[in-house]
Amino acid sequence: MATQTSFLTSLVTSFVVFCVLMLVYFILSRRPGNAPVYYPLRILRGEDGAVAAKRRGPFSWITESYRATDAEIVAAAGLDAAVYIHLFTAAVEIIGLSALYCIPVLVPLSSTSSYNQQQLRTTGNFTYQNFDNLGMANVEPNSRKIWAFLIGMFYVSMVVYFVLWRSYRWVVDLRDREIASSNARPQQFTALVRDIPKPMGKETRAQQVESFFARVHPGAYNRVQPVYNIKPVEKLFSEREDALRKLEHSEAVWELSKQKGNGDGERPMHRIGFMGLWGRKVDSIDYWRQKSEEMKPKLDAEQSRTRHDLEQDAAFVIFNDRRTAAEASQVVHAPHALFWKVSQAPEPEEVVWNNLHIHAWNRAMRRIIVSVITFFLVIFYMIPIAFVAGLTTLENLEKLLPFTSNITKIPVVGAIVQGYLPQLALLLFLFLLPKIMMVLSHAEGFPSQSQVVRSASSKYFYFIIFNVFLGVTIFGAVFSNLSSVKILVQQSQLSANKVVTLLGSKLPPVASYYITYVALRFFIGYGLELSRLIPLCIFHFKRKFKCKTERELKEAWAPGAFTYHKSIPNDLLILTISLCYSVIAPMVIPFAFTYYVLGWFVQRNQALNVHVPDFESHGSMWPHIHNRILAALFVAQITALGYFGVKEFLFTPILIILPVATVIFYMFCKKNYYPSIVVVSLWTAAETPKSRPSEGAIAYEYTPSCLQEGHPGIRDRRSNLATQFNSTINAVV
Amino acid sequence: MATQTSFLTSLVTSFVVFCVLMLVYFILSRRPGNAPVYYPLRILRGEDGAVAAKRRGPFSWITESYRATDAEIVAAAGLDAAVYIHLFTAAVEIIGLSALYCIPVLVPLSSTSSYNQQQLRTTGNFTYQNFDNLGMANVEPNSRKIWAFLIGMFYVSMVVYFVLWRSYRWVVDLRDREIASSNARPQQFTALVRDIPKPMGKETRAQQVESFFARVHPGAYNRVQPVYNIKPVEKLFSEREDALRKLEHSEAVWELSKQKGNGDGERPMHRIGFMGLWGRKVDSIDYWRQKSEEMKPKLDAEQSRTRHDLEQDAAFVIFNDRRTAAEASQVVHAPHALFWKVSQAPEPEEVVWNNLHIHAWNRAMRRIIVSVITFFLVIFYMIPIAFVAGLTTLENLEKLLPFTSNITKIPVVGAIVQGYLPQLALLLFLFLLPKIMMVLSHAEGFPSQSQVVRSASSKYFYFIIFNVFLGVTIFGAVFSNLSSVKILVQQSQLSANKVVTLLGSKLPPVASYYITYVALRFFIGYGLELSRLIPLCIFHFKRKFKCKTERELKEAWAPGAFTYHKSIPNDLLILTISLCYSVIAPMVIPFAFTYYVLGWFVQRNQALNVHVPDFESHGSMWPHIHNRILAALFVAQITALGYFGVKEFLFTPILIILPVATVIFYMFCKKNYYPSIVVVSLWTAAETPKSRPSEGAIAYEYTPSCLQEGHPGIRDRRSNLATQFNSTINAVV
Repeated sequence: MATQTSFLTSLVTSFVVFCVLMLVYFILSRRPGNAPVYYPLRILRGEDGAVAAKRRGPFSWITESYRATDAEIVAAAGLDAAVYIHLFTAAVEIIGLSALYCIPVLVPLSSTSSYNQQQLRTTGNFTYQNFDNLGMANVEPNSRKIWAFLIGMFYVSMVVYFVLWRSYRWVVDLRDREIASSNARPQQFTALVRDIPKPMGKETRAQQVESFFARVHPGAYNRVQPVYNIKPVEKLFSEREDALRKLEHSEAVWELSKQKGNGDGERPMHRIGFMGLWGRKVDSIDYWRQKSEEMKPKLDAEQSRTRHDLEQDAAFVIFNDRRTAAEASQVVHAPHALFWKVSQAPEPEEVVWNNLHIHAWNRAMRRIIVSVITFFLVIFYMIPIAFVAGLTTLENLEKLLPFTSNITKIPVVGAIVQGYLPQLALLLFLFLLPKIMMVLSHAEGFPSQSQVVRSASSKYFYFIIFNVFLGVTIFGAVFSNLSSVKILVQQSQLSANKVVTLLGSKLPPVASYYITYVALRFFIGYGLELSRLIPLCIFHFKRKFKCKTERELKEAWAPGAFTYHKSIPNDLLILTISLCYSVIAPMVIPFAFTYYVLGWFVQRNQALNVHVPDFESHGSMWPHIHNRILAALFVAQITALGYFGVKEFLFTPILIILPVATVIFYMFCKKNYYPSIVVVSLWTAAETPKSRPSEGAIAYEYTPSCLQEGHPGIRDRRSNLATQFNSTINAVV
Repeated sequence: MATQTSFLTSLVTSFVVFCVLMLVYFILSRRPGNAPVYYPLRILRGEDGAVAAKRRGPFSWITESYRATDAEIVAAAGLDAAVYIHLFTAAVEIIGLSALYCIPVLVPLSSTSSYNQQQLRTTGNFTYQNFDNLGMANVEPNSRKIWAFLIGMFYVSMVVYFVLWRSYRWVVDLRDREIASSNARPQQFTALVRDIPKPMGKETRAQQVESFFARVHPGAYNRVQPVYNIKPVEKLFSEREDALRKLEHSEAVWELSKQKGNGDGERPMHRIGFMGLWGRKVDSIDYWRQKSEEMKPKLDAEQSRTRHDLEQDAAFVIFNDRRTAAEASQVVHAPHALFWKVSQAPEPEEVVWNNLHIHAWNRAMRRIIVSVITFFLVIFYMIPIAFVAGLTTLENLEKLLPFTSNITKIPVVGAIVQGYLPQLALLLFLFLLPKIMMVLSHAEGFPSQSQVVRSASSKYFYFIIFNVFLGVTIFGAVFSNLSSVKILVQQSQLSANKVVTLLGSKLPPVASYYITYVALRFFIGYGLELSRLIPLCIFHFKRKFKCKTERELKEAWAPGAFTYHKSIPNDLLILTISLCYSVIAPMVIPFAFTYYVLGWFVQRNQALNVHVPDFESHGSMWPHIHNRILAALFVAQITALGYFGVKEFLFTPILIILPVATVIFYMFCKKNYYPSIVVVSLWTAAETPKSRPSEGAIAYEYTPSCLQEGHPGIRDRRSNLATQFNSTINAVV
């Protein structure tokens, strides 16, 4: 726990760093050469980045971010980003409305009490900070003042329900407007069929699906696009892509050398051994051209073999109109619902091809295994960290790797190893975690990337709530006097009741810790996010030393999408903290409020100027966020139950109503609002779209790129997005 | 707890009563005059009951019951009855397969141990019966033999999963065959729309619904049948029905008196005051004729007013084909899923008209309130019972009602009052309970009778598990030494952990109690069910003294439907008991097995010969039963956890896998099997039916009888069923 001074120091330091980063952003973002880093989305959309950069004042990004309408955000970054930013809007509303009661009513009530002083007088080893006098900790046990705090809990809960209810309606409206009015996209005409049973007789998959759907959707069924096992062909395809890419690179190097020196230039050479380190030296251009030409017939053969022999138990079914597709994706098709599972087709870009064929039983098994792994990962993640931390202390290091003892004897090196190695290990583990979560979620068998991201986000959320929030609160405070934990466990009295009380009793002392944490997150986190220092350095480095072709350059400044699976859990953690403390220690509120307001401006700016969406799931992130905000509220209500109990308040059991109400609210929303977001309503789908893709185009989109005939050679996701924005790329650099 | 002798006495008594009842059934069911009691369903279907009765031997009902195919049961009693009987099949399979391991492996293991003897030697106040030596109680704590019991738990769980999995498939197949092949019924072309938003402008409901559905289901939409507020018209209608019924009765009385005595007969008279006790005396025939004629124009006026002014926010939408209706009922129609909720229409007969207009928010509120009431009812039901029981002891009775003291001074009366009044109070309360549950479920706002019944059944199941099973097990055993409970509660250590241990430790002593209970249930319960003594008496009494018209006579022998909301919870209770004991005290198995085998024969007989279904919900009872069997297994697994813990078995934590597996199995079935039963698949609905009702006929069916034009006057559900069976009723009596 930070003392008063260290707490203030930390706040001031963070603020100074933030100011510096803002200045850096202002200066660097004006330089035209940096436009691909600060305005990549605008460049891709064909707006002149250089001009855009010049007319900006130091705070113009704030006014721009503020003025942008929902429609502009959706147009620039898609519904998913708009929904993600709405998390900030909702959090600002929740915290702002909570503050209306908690700050003017509860803070005076606390500050006029003197329980902390009293405790200081009676017990010797009690410490507190002036700061703590502004929270419920300072109120005498079983005082009548606690009624005001109890009412506060009810008020905050009502605020959350109200804001979430309004948000759901907002998201539904936004999504509906977007789907109804926009040009029809391929996925709106398509349904994904999985769990197709074994065909009877000698039918091919395509014939089987065709005869099934022609019967159950007479008139509206158009065609089937089978799903193939593309693993072998994909390998060949990417090898050839790689060869073509290297050929292009070599040619560019040759061109450059021509421009520089002698007229003929210098043809690039390389060794064909391991990593280009040894082996025969060859002319790169000839080598890669020959390689790619050799592979063409092989690839063609593999493509046609895949199309004939490697059909899988899944298919995309294309309909004549959006209405039927929307309808089909919500309906049970076969008498045994286990088979012929029809769902909305994901956007072609985000299809996870290698998961489509996995059957329901298999998916269930995978989900169980992944859940178990996640459970143990969440519970025991601290163990490998502690192990590595233990390993990296000097003595253990010397024992394991004797040769290091000579080096670590040098005092400076020793101090560094001892001081930073554990932190590094922790950082490495925490850095790896979202990636592990993504791999795990991928293994669950989801058909689309957006589902994988959502699932990874939820896993990371559990982790962060358990390890960061509960971990710091309970274990952080408890392990300081480990004996009490031992007694607790030994007497096997570790009941739910005890945990709640414990949670309640340990909350207030760590309030200042969390304030520091939140301040650090918004000052440093958003400062870095906005100034984009790391991407800037990487871009300039690559531009100087690595990129030779225009394609490579474009890839170097590719801004990437929002990493929802990392940022949503972190944003929700702050909300959990502020909900838990809003009543018990209302001084957390201003900091949390600042976090979300700043986040709202920064993320809107990033959505408008920087990040390029990977996929569009039409806002299906919202139910995920909604449920986790409710989970945060639930945790807050349970901890309040514990803390009011610690304060020996007789009417504490009244608070039991709140978690029950949260569960009821959750179920109500799940039943009545959730369907609005996971499916497209018939009314919306029955709207006639302005324009629509042809069936052939849709079928082509739902062919993995390694199987597309007439494929334009090298093609990547981002170049595809560029054509989607229907613009030419300005070579601004 | 029964001693060895009283246990055997009870078994033998029950068995004797059973034999007597079987004999009674054999004798009485052969008499042609009793055919309407024993074969009412056959009579309604037009089979000659008298002939059927004559050719029966004492056990022919058993062979008949055994030989009946699924198709015959479905034809006679509907899918719901077939599914209900499948509960017995599943239970027989579960218990039979469990016995294969538990009886030959676990019983010898127990009987060769001697822990009970050992305990008797060491502790003074320990009692046990020889019977208890056959259960796990006799095995030494932490013995290696307990592994076999642990494996037993896994085996039994696997058996349950396997049987339930097969059952789901069986039910889906049966249901699918039935829906696809049968003649199309009105509900298959119809969808129920609820939560219709306020119409814009001056549109009527019908126009509003019409324009909505004509847009989202172009081509397939046929017509709309609005829902009205029928409360006022229903009151008038039933008053008039009553008058017509009384007129018919009076005329019949007159006819009879003509046949008996003087040629002109005696015209019946009655007083028009309260309950016919005082007031002016009038000629009944004239009075009721005049009354019914007076009411006709009033009723007509009210009918047309209802049709014009009392439209509600719900409607039945009729489609051209079954496919669209099936599709529409599964799909989200409006952008806000809270509105325009479309679901499968219930069978016309089972529509709960006065619930249709209730909106989603209102339904949610009602559900919350009803859940709270049910919760308290389940938890505190023992309190009013105890209160009444306390009231009815002699002293309290004399205090409250002093005048009774004279009567109760007579020894015999005093003994009876003291001995039976509490029991009577208990019986009355238990008798009222299913009715209370039905009223509560009705208030939740379900649109169909079958949902009301399911909901009532689930409430009663909770009640029975909590009060009968857990109550007898924990509280029954614990309250015998109340002090331990007090200590438990006072120290506020009543954690989940404690409850599980308690549950485990109290199980074995009450095993013999449950065996007596099960035996009583099957011997007396099924004996009474089969012999139908009470309906027989009522029928003959009414025939003699009350019934004058043929309609009245028919109503007197109306057999009623299966009372699922009472019988399913009771049947599931036995399964819960047998699952809990199958491993711990395997001697329960033979009795539970007998219960279900006997039940299977008796209920099949009742389905084929007696009960007339009220409604047909196409087997949607199964998921309800399935979930509750899983709940029973879950309870069994939790108690096993407690009991193995009591036995100080080190590897007890392995058992935690089982409840987790149950939850996973539940979720898997909910996701992959449940949809097959709640909705009709497109494949099935796309089948062309043999015959189909006209749209006009469907619309007529979905008009409440009090609004039907050209309504045939008096009409009740059963006469309607008779016409459905397309047969004439034989006046066999």
